[in-house]
Amino acid sequence: MNIRLFHARILTMEKHRPVFWGEVWVKDARIVYIGEADKLKAGMGKDFPEIRWDREVDCGGNLLMPGFKDAHTHSAMTFLRSYADDVPLQQWLQEKVFPMEAKLFWEDIYHFTKLAVLEYLTSGITSVFEMYLTPDAMGQACIDMGMRCVLTSGLNDFTSSVEQQEAEYLKWNKCHPLISYRLGFHSEYTCSKELLSGVAELARKYRAPVFTHLAETEAEVQGCLDRNGMTPAAFLDRLGVFDYGGGGYHCVYMTHHDMEIFKSRGLVAVTNPASNLKLASGIAPVAEYVRRGIPVAIGTDGPASNNCLDMFREMFLVSGLSKVREKDAASLDAEEVLAMATSEGARAMGLHDGDILEKGKLADLILIDLHQPNMQPIHNIPKNIVYSGSKANVRMTMINGRILYENGNFCLPEGEDAEEIYRKCEGIVKRIIYT
Amino acid sequence: MNIRLFHARILTMEKHRPVFWGEVWVKDARIVYIGEADKLKAGMGKDFPEIRWDREVDCGGNLLMPGFKDAHTHSAMTFLRSYADDVPLQQWLQEKVFPMEAKLFWEDIYHFTKLAVLEYLTSGITSVFEMYLTPDAMGQACIDMGMRCVLTSGLNDFTSSVEQQEAEYLKWNKCHPLISYRLGFHSEYTCSKELLSGVAELARKYRAPVFTHLAETEAEVQGCLDRNGMTPAAFLDRLGVFDYGGGGYHCVYMTHHDMEIFKSRGLVAVTNPASNLKLASGIAPVAEYVRRGIPVAIGTDGPASNNCLDMFREMFLVSGLSKVREKDAASLDAEEVLAMATSEGARAMGLHDGDILEKGKLADLILIDLHQPNMQPIHNIPKNIVYSGSKANVRMTMINGRILYENGNFCLPEGEDAEEIYRKCEGIVKRIIYT
Repeated sequence: MNIRLFHARILTMEKHRPVFWGEVWVKDARIVYIGEADKLKAGMGKDFPEIRWDREVDCGGNLLMPGFKDAHTHSAMTFLRSYADDVPLQQWLQEKVFPMEAKLFWEDIYHFTKLAVLEYLTSGITSVFEMYLTPDAMGQACIDMGMRCVLTSGLNDFTSSVEQQEAEYLKWNKCHPLISYRLGFHSEYTCSKELLSGVAELARKYRAPVFTHLAETEAEVQGCLDRNGMTPAAFLDRLGVFDYGGGGYHCVYMTHHDMEIFKSRGLVAVTNPASNLKLASGIAPVAEYVRRGIPVAIGTDGPASNNCLDMFREMFLVSGLSKVREKDAASLDAEEVLAMATSEGARAMGLHDGDILEKGKLADLILIDLHQPNMQPIHNIPKNIVYSGSKANVRMTMINGRILYENGNFCLPEGEDAEEIYRKCEGIVKRIIYT
Repeated sequence: MNIRLFHARILTMEKHRPVFWGEVWVKDARIVYIGEADKLKAGMGKDFPEIRWDREVDCGGNLLMPGFKDAHTHSAMTFLRSYADDVPLQQWLQEKVFPMEAKLFWEDIYHFTKLAVLEYLTSGITSVFEMYLTPDAMGQACIDMGMRCVLTSGLNDFTSSVEQQEAEYLKWNKCHPLISYRLGFHSEYTCSKELLSGVAELARKYRAPVFTHLAETEAEVQGCLDRNGMTPAAFLDRLGVFDYGGGGYHCVYMTHHDMEIFKSRGLVAVTNPASNLKLASGIAPVAEYVRRGIPVAIGTDGPASNNCLDMFREMFLVSGLSKVREKDAASLDAEEVLAMATSEGARAMGLHDGDILEKGKLADLILIDLHQPNMQPIHNIPKNIVYSGSKANVRMTMINGRILYENGNFCLPEGEDAEEIYRKCEGIVKRIIYT
């Protein structure tokens, strides 16, 4: 498909490049041209002697920008949305989450992941960093829906194995252009030392980064101190898990030494502010990470703990919670947070072709409606997006050059239908929870 | 207009009444019938022998519920949205807000209020409790847009007077069915003791409640302690300001004694969580208010400090911030928060006919789209709304029996047009800020 997006404001998310008026040309999965309209026309004859547009979209002065990167989620947990709320954390896990998860089949996870993908599209999320029980089901769901997905393993003492992870790693890193795979495991507190050493070995074998839940709660950190005499970050680093980089999800309770490890290893801190509020975990010291030069990305976490998959909410929270934590209204400005939600997120996930809008990069982009009252007046577009934006402003979501959501309607690959996915999921929920 | 809303799920917000399937009938400004479809039909012949529908709306199984009540805002501050962010509080006020406000004319406030009204409609907000410089301009803007508005005065040592407030009180409480007026003043720290005594006198004269900014920041409370040897709540109560009730906006820093005053006077605490984060003010002890039986309502505050006028964001924050403050994931459940945003808000604002959906009550209601992925599956509708809802779920907003927003389009009173309001506001912004 050749798609011309014209009459747009454009925010490439290149550092310090302001919004400009212009066009973006998309050919198959990639951006082939981006720039001011006049310059595009001047270069047209040479580069595209016979370009034929399948579609030309008048963007009406609205904003084209890179899609959001959801750097930590458990998509299939849609099935527990609004089922397991307002109870203490341990009760939530023991009574509500674990018993229900035990009833899940492969196909259930496939369908619940599709439900989550619908929501990502409405929120302008074009890639997700996905950890849940069955990577194969999640990968397949994303392929079928046209979603870009970086898989990782939820490996722990009860689920999966180092061998299975290696097989998944090899399969999913060359199976489909929408899917890639990073090494990972659930957490220090659900994995034996032997298992973690196995992961470290894999990391060394493939010189690959490793990702895991890390320092989400005070109790988790204390437990690791009790067991190992070290914080989770220090313990995992000592085992060699982070020899080739990677990062931690949550990172709410980090010591000075933990942050030094993150800085020296180039580890990314993936913050999940809504989930950390809703489960009463705490407020992560994101401004401190930024001061130290630790890369930060943003995740929604899964819909059982958040409960929505909405990067606008997360962006406001990253900034707002940092301001209140630091007692400084100037802490973490909107531009920084927008970078975390887009370019920094892409880098954290290894999507180096999806970080900014530029010729040759992946056509993973969104159109933000500025003709809505929450975007008016237009003093500063990044601030409008972070502080007053909402998913209602997402006019179009394009992944891999394909428009999947436009003007409130889904334009899914053949055979996929939103209402049918709702029905399917309702049926499974009925079986798992209400019978 | 006679409007029949059928094939709906209905959440009346009566206490402990669960969602049911049925219809709502609206005649002019009021609900004339509500209930299950069958029972309605049975009663139809007797009560409505010759009812003729101007419109019949198939709600498609979506949810009818009372509109949200924004219990504290400064609508016209839309003109500073995204202009004055990410700077420390005092610099924000002294360099960004006050100098620009000084340039505002009456008409400017009129147009900027209209811009805010557009945003309220998209977020399902059907009433606002409005404090800004010129109540007359704000009241007129709301009348012209069809918005319900409770005005109060921003009276302080530099703006307005007790006499002007009394005139406004008398005028706006019998001028138009959409508008009412409550006594109020800006804050303890911007009013002399004499001025406050004048307000207390007015309160006694009209046996009327009084509202004001209260205990928003630590510095404000400390200043009052230094000046008066008492906290703001105690000082104002001593002056007789709260003899007939009323309430405080923000209420972030309240002592045990302050809360006792609130409880014994029946004062309402209006919480503004997004603004309190963004200005680094703090996190209000809302769960403590609930434990003590102090009524709580929710406000967005103005768009210079929030920056959006979105009750979904506020509701999630009220619950999420309470959970993290109390270190208890069970703190402030969704049902409680939804009541604060609807029925409790209405009562705080004196809108006793707008609190719930019931025969005879005002037809201020909204239709929430459940056929979107963030509302699926449907385990629990109130939790879906509070934890995963967004303004994108607002399918219709009706105020005073009139549909003003539907399926993403505004249906404004004659002569009003959203794009024209944007243009007007951009022009004024250019004059005030950029020339």
